[in-house]
Amino acid sequence: MTKPEHGAGPVATKIDLTAALATFDEPWSPRIVGRYNRNKIFLAKAKGEFVWHSHPDTDDLFLVLEGRLTIQLRDGDIELGPGEMFVVPRGVEHCPRSDEGASILLIEPEGTPNTGDPATAAAEVEL
Amino acid sequence: MTKPEHGAGPVATKIDLTAALATFDEPWSPRIVGRYNRNKIFLAKAKGEFVWHSHPDTDDLFLVLEGRLTIQLRDGDIELGPGEMFVVPRGVEHCPRSDEGASILLIEPEGTPNTGDPATAAAEVEL
Repeated sequence: MTKPEHGAGPVATKIDLTAALATFDEPWSPRIVGRYNRNKIFLAKAKGEFVWHSHPDTDDLFLVLEGRLTIQLRDGDIELGPGEMFVVPRGVEHCPRSDEGASILLIEPEGTPNTGDPATAAAEVEL
Repeated sequence: MTKPEHGAGPVATKIDLTAALATFDEPWSPRIVGRYNRNKIFLAKAKGEFVWHSHPDTDDLFLVLEGRLTIQLRDGDIELGPGEMFVVPRGVEHCPRSDEGASILLIEPEGTPNTGDPATAAAEVEL
């Protein structure tokens, strides 16, 4: 078939999340696997603790695919297992942590650095 | 803990997709389970064929959680199983179909009717 062109550039093909997760191991090193409007869809591995940060202009969506992830907030923790999702509201400080390891799906607008610090945006890799 | 307020209104709590899916059976009757920026996150059951439609102003994200879903496009079909995702580019005609049934996660901007026809927007139910 002719693959339809995605408005944002990449060709639209289906994404097998399990297969994509098998291609990398580095924790806290998100891979871009797709785009939805002006948002990037990432897969990431979580292991240990990330850094405290917030995104002043965007919510931050986490969907756990495998393992367990803790979203530490300043006033308590959100514990997520497979098939559980949490949206960190814009401006809310958070620090993801996974003691046992987790595979997660993330959505963020184009141009959003993953720590709220533009210096880390370069760490994102197109899969 | 004090639950943080979501910018778009609802309180931010984690969402257990499996538990949410267990609360309804009607096919093609999406339930809003969360919000991310100005987008609605839906769960839906698919069974049989929906209708051909397109969204002129937005991409349409489908993530299959259970079962199998076919995204029929005018120039071919995209076959999706659990853990597979497809983004229908804006303006591309599509007709979802599931012979055996499927549970799916969808993301659409606020105000987007699910058929591109404003009359069907009222069918969306807040879970």
